[in-house]
Amino acid sequence: MTRLLTALVAVPLLLALILWAPSWAFTLVASCVAFLAYFELSGLARKQGHSVLGVGYVATPMLVASFHLEPHASFLLSVEGAALFAMLAIGVASVSLRTPGRESWSAVSASAFSVFYVGVLLGSLVGVRGLPPDVSGRSWTIFLLAVVMLGDGGAYYTGRAIGRRPLAPTLSPKKTVEGLVGGIAVSVLAALGTNATLLPEIPMWHAAALGLGIAVLAAIGDLFESLLKRSAGVKDTSGLIPGHGGFLDRLDSILFAAPLVYSYRLLVTA
Amino acid sequence: MTRLLTALVAVPLLLALILWAPSWAFTLVASCVAFLAYFELSGLARKQGHSVLGVGYVATPMLVASFHLEPHASFLLSVEGAALFAMLAIGVASVSLRTPGRESWSAVSASAFSVFYVGVLLGSLVGVRGLPPDVSGRSWTIFLLAVVMLGDGGAYYTGRAIGRRPLAPTLSPKKTVEGLVGGIAVSVLAALGTNATLLPEIPMWHAAALGLGIAVLAAIGDLFESLLKRSAGVKDTSGLIPGHGGFLDRLDSILFAAPLVYSYRLLVTA
Repeated sequence: MTRLLTALVAVPLLLALILWAPSWAFTLVASCVAFLAYFELSGLARKQGHSVLGVGYVATPMLVASFHLEPHASFLLSVEGAALFAMLAIGVASVSLRTPGRESWSAVSASAFSVFYVGVLLGSLVGVRGLPPDVSGRSWTIFLLAVVMLGDGGAYYTGRAIGRRPLAPTLSPKKTVEGLVGGIAVSVLAALGTNATLLPEIPMWHAAALGLGIAVLAAIGDLFESLLKRSAGVKDTSGLIPGHGGFLDRLDSILFAAPLVYSYRLLVTA
Repeated sequence: MTRLLTALVAVPLLLALILWAPSWAFTLVASCVAFLAYFELSGLARKQGHSVLGVGYVATPMLVASFHLEPHASFLLSVEGAALFAMLAIGVASVSLRTPGRESWSAVSASAFSVFYVGVLLGSLVGVRGLPPDVSGRSWTIFLLAVVMLGDGGAYYTGRAIGRRPLAPTLSPKKTVEGLVGGIAVSVLAALGTNATLLPEIPMWHAAALGLGIAVLAAIGDLFESLLKRSAGVKDTSGLIPGHGGFLDRLDSILFAAPLVYSYRLLVTA
């Protein structure tokens, strides 16, 4: 019930953000989500007895936002500049703590991982929305989300109906090979459907190939998040979204699929 | 003795590489060093009971090499593209291991940290050498190395002569505030000296400010490396350079100072 109510509020808001708001508003929201995702990863680290550096709360949103102007950014606003700043900031923050010991390595590693995991992958979603022309940015964002989310649903129902062979029993016991195949099929159909309606600018077989690629990457992103949660011994990354777990629980698939769509837009349609 | 002999072989080779070899040769050598630095970091991780992912042996050199064509790279050869590839590769490699547990977080974190620490910072050194015009690339590389190395020497001798107040006793017990000040002074002088001879293209006060900035960042880079080594309980990152420890022991200061020189070249002289 909570889950449904949250969706009823969040989905229209998300759609409004993508369809009507300017791209900088999308970047701003993504940067706030990056801040919260870093908070969630700090929670996973804490569960394992580690800590993360506070500087990541600044560096992660900066890295995400740095994708806003790519590929025509000046160095200071570029992904390259933000990545260099983030790495130096982690170094400065860690030596100014001056509490060396076995914990230092874990804190530095967890911070760098969290900053770059959220920073570059969520950043590529900002890039998907932000690359001109504006109308394409909107369509491509809807395309990505539709293919991932409908594929998710397809995998769930196919798995429940005919799932037998476990996909990755140690990581995510409920996932099956059949579910994966069903999810891929639905993703490809969703890609073709969006192609026919919202995104006519690319050839049909490109849309199908992207649907396939997105589905595979999304599945890997999901398993990767499971790996991190298993390691921390938790089921959800946080309880920040009522009924839905944390932001990373909702984003895991999108984080891995976004770089593909971003690359495609940059290389083929730009 | 071993230390001296190694220096007698390595320094002329390094100078020849910078002064006569084309920039792609410098990038190639830096990429090989990145491979070895990742190996050294994997050793530090192992000392603490962690492991790193093999995919970092590919991703780290790629990230370093991606700076070769910046800022005019096409996406596939850009820092941005390499960073996205590296993060996705870490995800794919870690879920295909399928051995989840408390170790997963540490392995993923240590791998991401090692790839991005070496990748973007050593990459910026490739950028210092690679930014056109070619003759400037050579001069700037010499400038950076001279300021860092002479500053190192200055800090050592000043500290030994008049050093009293410890700088960061928990990280590096032998370093003193007096040594740091002496090092900064020598760095600024080295910067002014190089400016007067090899690098007349920038104003004197820029050279002095860069000398100061390089000295401070180099000191932080050195402390950061000490932090990592303390955490692992080792004195050297490896024994790969006879008499000199590992590549990271020699590179630590340069890694933190290179982004400053790279940024300066991109923003001011480019």
